[in-house]
This record gives sequence, C-alpha cells and structure tokens, in this order.
Amino acid sequence: MTQKACIVGGGVIGGGWAARFLLNGWDVAVFDPDPEAERKIGEVIANARRSLPSLYDKRLPDEGKLTFHNDLTEAAKGADWIQESVPERLELKHKVLGNLTEMASPTTVIGSSTSGFKPSELCAEGARAIVAHPFNPVYLLPLIELVGDPGETARAAEILRSIGMFPLTVRKEIDAHIADRFLEAVWREALWLVKDGIATTEEIDEAIRMGFGLRWAQMGLFETYRIAGGEAGMKHFMAQFGPCLTWPWTKLMDVPEFTDELVDLIAGQSDDQSRHLSIRELERLRDDNLVGMMRALKKSGSGAGGVLVAHEKALANAEPAELPVTVDRQIPQSWTDYNNHMNEAHYLEAGAAATDRFMELIGADADYIASGKSYFTVENHLRYLDELKAGERLTVTTQVLQGEGKKMKLFHFLKNGDGKVAATMETMLLHVDLTTRASCPPPPEVEEKLTAFAKAHTTLPVPDGAGRYVGQRG
Amino acid sequence: MTQKACIVGGGVIGGGWAARFLLNGWDVAVFDPDPEAERKIGEVIANARRSLPSLYDKRLPDEGKLTFHNDLTEAAKGADWIQESVPERLELKHKVLGNLTEMASPTTVIGSSTSGFKPSELCAEGARAIVAHPFNPVYLLPLIELVGDPGETARAAEILRSIGMFPLTVRKEIDAHIADRFLEAVWREALWLVKDGIATTEEIDEAIRMGFGLRWAQMGLFETYRIAGGEAGMKHFMAQFGPCLTWPWTKLMDVPEFTDELVDLIAGQSDDQSRHLSIRELERLRDDNLVGMMRALKKSGSGAGGVLVAHEKALANAEPAELPVTVDRQIPQSWTDYNNHMNEAHYLEAGAAATDRFMELIGADADYIASGKSYFTVENHLRYLDELKAGERLTVTTQVLQGEGKKMKLFHFLKNGDGKVAATMETMLLHVDLTTRASCPPPPEVEEKLTAFAKAHTTLPVPDGAGRYVGQRG
Repeated sequence: MTQKACIVGGGVIGGGWAARFLLNGWDVAVFDPDPEAERKIGEVIANARRSLPSLYDKRLPDEGKLTFHNDLTEAAKGADWIQESVPERLELKHKVLGNLTEMASPTTVIGSSTSGFKPSELCAEGARAIVAHPFNPVYLLPLIELVGDPGETARAAEILRSIGMFPLTVRKEIDAHIADRFLEAVWREALWLVKDGIATTEEIDEAIRMGFGLRWAQMGLFETYRIAGGEAGMKHFMAQFGPCLTWPWTKLMDVPEFTDELVDLIAGQSDDQSRHLSIRELERLRDDNLVGMMRALKKSGSGAGGVLVAHEKALANAEPAELPVTVDRQIPQSWTDYNNHMNEAHYLEAGAAATDRFMELIGADADYIASGKSYFTVENHLRYLDELKAGERLTVTTQVLQGEGKKMKLFHFLKNGDGKVAATMETMLLHVDLTTRASCPPPPEVEEKLTAFAKAHTTLPVPDGAGRYVGQRG
Repeated sequence: MTQKACIVGGGVIGGGWAARFLLNGWDVAVFDPDPEAERKIGEVIANARRSLPSLYDKRLPDEGKLTFHNDLTEAAKGADWIQESVPERLELKHKVLGNLTEMASPTTVIGSSTSGFKPSELCAEGARAIVAHPFNPVYLLPLIELVGDPGETARAAEILRSIGMFPLTVRKEIDAHIADRFLEAVWREALWLVKDGIATTEEIDEAIRMGFGLRWAQMGLFETYRIAGGEAGMKHFMAQFGPCLTWPWTKLMDVPEFTDELVDLIAGQSDDQSRHLSIRELERLRDDNLVGMMRALKKSGSGAGGVLVAHEKALANAEPAELPVTVDRQIPQSWTDYNNHMNEAHYLEAGAAATDRFMELIGADADYIASGKSYFTVENHLRYLDELKAGERLTVTTQVLQGEGKKMKLFHFLKNGDGKVAATMETMLLHVDLTTRASCPPPPEVEEKLTAFAKAHTTLPVPDGAGRYVGQRG
C-alpha cells in the first residue's frame, strides 16, 4: 500500500522532504499557507527529479501523488509521517505540533526539522514529536539527525532508511544537535576572518574545498586524524596535536558583533564571488557535483556511497517480460558529453550492466564471482541509432544468441523512455576461472540456466544488426 | 631543464611533498636524519604512484630522480624549491631555516610546512622563508596556504600551479593561517561532544560525511549558504541566521581539559570504529575516494576539479609517432571492476578519448564543436585481447580506415605498458550539424586534414580484426 507523508511548511526544507518522499513512491500532502508554496515546492521537486534518480543504477519506484491543501486536518489525514518545517519560533512550533499530535494516529511519526530546539522544548506543551533534522538539499544529502523518544526515533529510522536516508540517532538531547554545532563554530571563525580582512568569502571557500572539505566528505574528522596518526594510531595523533588546543589561535572564541557593516562586507564579497550564476544555476551545479561525488563513493561504499549501495539493493529489479529487462534506470547528467547527449562509452556501460544482470539471472552473481568463476567479455559491437539525453528513462532487454559450453553471446536492446530502440549491443563472453584467468566451461547449474534462456530465445527472430561488421551496408 | 626540490624532514608531510614534485618530473633530494626516512617516504610515494596519475586523463611527465642525503648542503645544492617539514618547535625551525637561507641561491623558494607559526616568527632570526602549508595527503589535495613576503609567495604560487596545486595566498599573517582555524574550532567542539557522551567518534564522522562534508568538498561555506539564502541572496541568509550566533549553543567555547581519560575515550572509540582496517588500508581507501570525487568534480570544474582541468591542459600531448598516439595515461582504480581488471566500458571510454584527440588533430576541437559542428559515433566494434590492470600505462594509436565526405572510420589500438595490443576498437563516425542533429559534410579545412591522414594510412596493412563481426572465426 502506498504510504503517505504530510509536509507542514514548504520552502526549501519542506520542499526537499516532499521530493524525497515523492520520488520514493510516497503520496505527499502539503500544507503551507504561503500562496507561493506550490511554485516553490515545484521548483525543489524539479531539481530533485533531475538529480536524485541519477544517484542510482536502478529505477526508483513510480512517483506518488502530490497534493496541496488549505486544511491541515485534511493534509494530515492517514499520514504515516508528518514533517513540520515551520519557522524557528518556539511558540509557533508548540501550536503546530500540538495540533498535529491531536490529528495523528498513534503510529504516525511526527518529525520537526528544527535545527535549534531540543525535543523537551518542542514537547513541553504536550506534543508527541521528535527532532528529524535534515540538511539541504534534503533530496540528495542522506543525513537526518533524530533526537527524542527512543521508540519514536527507532520507528522513524526504519522509514528513513527505506527512502534512502541515513538516520543518526543522537544519544542525548543538546542545543543544535551535532552537525550544526560544527557549522556554527566554523561560521563564527569565518566571520572573524572576513571582518579582520584576513580572507574574503571566496578565499575561505577555497581553503575548505581545496583541502579538508574533500577529506571530510568521505571520512569525516576522526577517521582522517586516525590516518594522520599513522601506524601508532589515534592515541599518537592526540599526543601530538592535542596540546595545540591551548595555543593562542584557539582563544579567539567570542562572537563577532553582527553589525550592518559586517553584513554588507560579506554579502558584497559573496556577490563578487558568485553573482555571475543565478541561485538556480548554483543549485544545479551543486546537485551535479553532489551526484558525481556520491556516485564516486559508491565504488568504495564509504559514507554516502554506502547508503546508496544499500538503498539500491533494496530497489526492485526490473519485472520479467518476453525478453528479460536487464536495466531500468534514469540517465544521469554525468553520462552526457560535449555533444549534449549520452556519451558512447556509457552506452557500453549500460550494456555491461545488462550483462551483469543477465549473469545474475543465470546464477553467475557476486557470490559466484567471489568463488572464483566469472565471465570475461571478448568482443562487443555497438550500433548507435538514436541520441539519448540526461534524465531520460533507459531500459535494456536482452536476447541470448548463443549459450553453450564456455561461450555466451548476448544481444542487448537499449531503449529510450518511449520504448524505441536507441542502440544495440552484441556481446560475446567466455566463462573463465579467475585463478588461472583461462577460459573453462561453467558448472552445470549455470549452464542449465543459460541454455534454458538460449532455447527459449531460438524461436525469436535474429535481431536486426546481429552478426554485422562496422560499416556494413543494408 | 629538470627542476630540483630539496625536502628537509620526511614523514607523512615531507614524503607527500617529495611525491608531488617527483611525479611531476622534478628531481627530489631528501635530507632527514631519521634512519627510517627512506622506508617511510617510499611508502608515501608508493601511495602517490597509485593515485595521483589516476586524477588525469593524460600521462604525467616522467618521474624525476629521488636521492637521500646525510648532508644538508649537498641536498640543498642547486634546488629551485626547498621545503622544510621538521617538527613544530620554533627554535628548531629557526636553526634549520637559517642554515637553508645561507645555502640557497637568492631565487630559491624556501617554504615551511608549519601549521602554526607566522612568517614573522619563522624569520625572526634572519631566515628568508615563507609559509607553504600543505594538507595531507599532499600528493592529492591541491591546497597550499602561502603566507609571507609578496614577491616570494608570488614566485612560489607559480611553481605550485605548475605541479597541479592550488596556492591560496593569505592576505595578512595570523596564527594558524586559515584552514587550521576551522579544523581547530571543529576539533574543540568534537572533543566536547565525545566527552559529554552526546556522540561517539564514529557518529561524529557520520554527522560530517553524510551531510555538510559533501557540500563543503565542492562549494565551501559561503557559496553553500548563498544557495540557502535563495533568490534573496546572501544578505537574506545572514538576516535569517546571523542572530543564531547569540543563541546558547554557541556559548560552549572554552577548551576541554585534555585529560588521560579523554584521550583514552577517544582512542578507544576510534579503535572500535576503524580497527578492522590497517592504516595502510585506510590510506588507500581515502585516496581512492579522493580520486573518485575529484575526478567527478572535473566534469563541472568546481573546486579541485577546476585545478585538475587546468593542470591537465598544461600536460604535454602524446608525441607524434608513425600512427598518431591519441591517448597516453595511467589506468585509474575506478576503471576496474569485480573481475579485478579494467572494465569493458572503460576500453570504450579510452577509445572515445582517442577519437576526441584525433578529432582535435583534424581541427574538430572544442571551439569547432562550440561553433555547431561535430562527429557522432554510429558504430563501434571492440575486441578484448588482454586484461588491463589499475596503475598500468595505457596508450592508444589510431589508424584511419576511411575518411571522405561525412564518413570517418578509425581503428584504435589500445596498448598496455609493454606496447602489447590489449584491445582494438573499430569506430565509424558521421559528421553532423549540431543544430539540426543531421549528418552533413565537414568544411574543407577539416576534410583536408582528415583525407591527408587517410591517404598517409593507405600504405599501412588493414589491421588484424578490422571489418569483422562478433564471433567471426579465424
């Protein structure tokens, strides 16, 4: 049964929550008195549609239904998750969360996006709510800080994992939870540096993204320092660097006065740095970068990459059809090139993924490869019949042309969103022993499944384009 | 003429500097009294060899010569850059930098890796040195903070750019420069969180790398917040969030006492988090992640990706030979797959890069494409003859099989480090008008260059494997 999320308060954060649920197949009901809410949330969802599916090499579920409501009761009705993202005023949060607690069923998660308030503050007037604090862009960044009743946060964590997020349950409530304490410490220091003319906003951004920002994105703070300690470990690192904490450069800890001059200085520098791009362009740049980096982390499974791997495993494989559907996914921006269409190498990447999936279908899966057997590709022939664009749906169906002994010849049809064949790939593989790297026949349980496919496919016509050489006419 | 760097003080930082210079073609002379110096620096360089070249899609220059010296004068002789990375004790720095100033020629850059001392402190006893503060791993992270005399830092910046780094010149000297002030602020906050039992070291790492760490790696602090401000810009963001600075959660700014209990608590948690991996394994994981993320950023040119793009442009194109060499590079780890060899799609990626380079050779370069003309691939045939491994050198030579009118048929030979053909790719392209997306003949200046190649190559034998279909015998 389709699950339902109720989003109370739109804007960038509420819109991000809406997109995350919607693109994971949930119905989403939005309540927001802002007359611009529908437009604003629509823009966030448009951003999400072009980036979130690009993280995965499988298709996300069909989108749920998105509705907008003027009546809170109607929006909240039957919701499995209600997320409050109204402005950070405690009396407003009390009122909204109190109302929602009355409307919600006892099993509904009521989450607050608050970055500053503790659950004891939110629930001081009887509301049943937990902190579920996200990070912008909510549709891409996995982190959600959960704080509050252990039973409620455990239930929330399970749901969050099912929509590809990473719940971090905070052990004790504390002002600003965890991440925002760090952000605040850095922000404070950055304001001093700008105010004292040590660095501009752009120079500070470079100091972060050219150096430790890259370290933190994949390992965080302590694991990075553990490496710095070398073989002697964390204790050695702390012995070496711990005492620095008492050096003069850590004494500068009072808060700079937030004068108009400081605001103008920073806003002016930020304009100089980035004015050539609109916020919408900056958002797309950020999202493309995040998608590219997170896809890179899938390879090792580190950090956000591990979350993607786990979520992708939980996504449904394509449904069987006349020919097995071996790929079903959205084309990521990173697959396109200077000709503004999918680059030729990624046609082969999609075809290789289809081969991988077909191997799984005949039992030559990851465990099988770990046991020391696999297939190696010896030849590929690709015909490029039509352009494919970023954001398009791509499906691949696979026909077995030959499957006997150590030989396996497959024919992949790459189809665009309308089911039109945009490319074909004929591929010949040999079964190999990974120890000797020499070819050998597969064991009977694999060969049986392969020959069963091959036999079923003998009744099909030889595909247009099979058995051809490059440039062959007619 | 080969340039020379003198590295004074080995360890992780000195070794990183050595690797950065060496792999960019510099001779490197190391002075370090530690009897283990050669082993330790060797390990860092081994890490660098498997990761730094993977950032680029062109080959780095031939490595320079690495020597170890017991005599500082000999090590420093004729050096264009001397880098001091001895322990952070001011009297020791005074002594070493004073000696180096006497030995160095007036044009030699004398850089100190100090993270804490200001140039006025370093030079208080007459040394001529600047701060050139790197970030671990020095062979991958581009950032170098330069502080000191404007003439000296300008000269240093030019050299750093030539070895693929990003010099950030700090406007005024200040304790700890820029980045370490942020690291220190976060470190202080993290110590409190662990001490107070709010989060473990692992949870803190997750709070960073699942959220804002990903943002910072590509945009830094201010550009991220600019987006958060939305269309209303940075000023709006500051109006909204500036006042938070006076909230109670920013008051926690005194330094936690560095007791044995705190050290044991943190070291113990870090062990629990990462003990299953050795430091060497953690380093390789970190490096593979950094390479993957930085390669992803090349696509947009953001942050470290922009540095790579600029440096790669400055790298030499492959030398012409009998057949044009269209690719010359090292195979990155990210190109390998579960069979522990280069994945089939990346053979095509290398072949596509060879096609791109050949297009440049006939004048169909980036400007040409921007003017609205290009070539589209319509067919590829790949034969996989041998496995290729991460870290191997890969070269591609290209033979023109057909080049007339709108048709261009190329044959790429993909060769391993020994010059053995590991794969061939036959590729057919059509010249297109990017506006209509329809094929059309190229302009005479392109066609002439193409036909000149085609004519020169008619005397060559038809390559083994050309004009064949998949599975063809003999």
